[in-house]
Amino acid sequence: MSEDSAQCDSRNDARKQRLAQFIRRIWDEGDADAADDFLADVYAIRHDPGDGWDGGTLDLEGFKERVRISRAPFPDQRFDIRGMFAEGDAVVMTWLWAGTHRGDIPGFPATGKTIRMSGATVYTFDGDDRITGHWQITDRLGVFQQLHRNLAATA
Amino acid sequence: MSEDSAQCDSRNDARKQRLAQFIRRIWDEGDADAADDFLADVYAIRHDPGDGWDGGTLDLEGFKERVRISRAPFPDQRFDIRGMFAEGDAVVMTWLWAGTHRGDIPGFPATGKTIRMSGATVYTFDGDDRITGHWQITDRLGVFQQLHRNLAATA
Repeated sequence: MSEDSAQCDSRNDARKQRLAQFIRRIWDEGDADAADDFLADVYAIRHDPGDGWDGGTLDLEGFKERVRISRAPFPDQRFDIRGMFAEGDAVVMTWLWAGTHRGDIPGFPATGKTIRMSGATVYTFDGDDRITGHWQITDRLGVFQQLHRNLAATA
Repeated sequence: MSEDSAQCDSRNDARKQRLAQFIRRIWDEGDADAADDFLADVYAIRHDPGDGWDGGTLDLEGFKERVRISRAPFPDQRFDIRGMFAEGDAVVMTWLWAGTHRGDIPGFPATGKTIRMSGATVYTFDGDDRITGHWQITDRLGVFQQLHRNLAATA
């Protein structure tokens, strides 16, 4: 391989490792402050239907607040990364997700039942390998169906 | 670049072009028989929540039937490809989609209104650059919300 290509492959591998660490520390383990180690100063949520921050940008403090709010109903949530595909400034991640519904969601009191989800996320990186934002699709209909089913079962 | 890397980039570019042609001819234009030119003998639907063929495999005739059934409610549907990311045997495609609701869906008679959707799809290829299947997430909740809103507006 030429030096350029080798550097490119090596950079992609490094970004995949960083992304896996980011998912584990921030989203799985809930260490929101660790975002300092992974994110650029501005994080863009370019496309994320149903997400409260869709189309917006967040600074580091805003991102940490998003992590805390998003994780509150599912404090033991875990991502199961199914694939990573790197090209250009992006790493695409496909994933499964599960969490125990332990915190209330408007209209859906906690049930203690497991909720499952899947999705695909395009993460982008800057020249210092910091994450600059995402474009994401999640199967939120599947989540609502589970929440409604659990609500009906406890009614 | 080394010969290997150049061949790899060139193959990825060819696959992206083929994928764009596949989307246009089969899914946008509805030429189901053109699947012969793009697909492997067996097409695997590895993950596609809510899709009637999720987890199954289709032969060429089965795939063409899937195209005809899926397109029937939205005969003028168009994909707007937002990004393509190639690595290994995969090309990931992010997309927006729109179609006029001209055919009945169970519970949702045709309204003539535009329905919009977005999604991300991992397409895989064999050594002859034929498409062997996909792993997909679509924002189907967004579609149901539009269908329900349109149904309520015509009730």
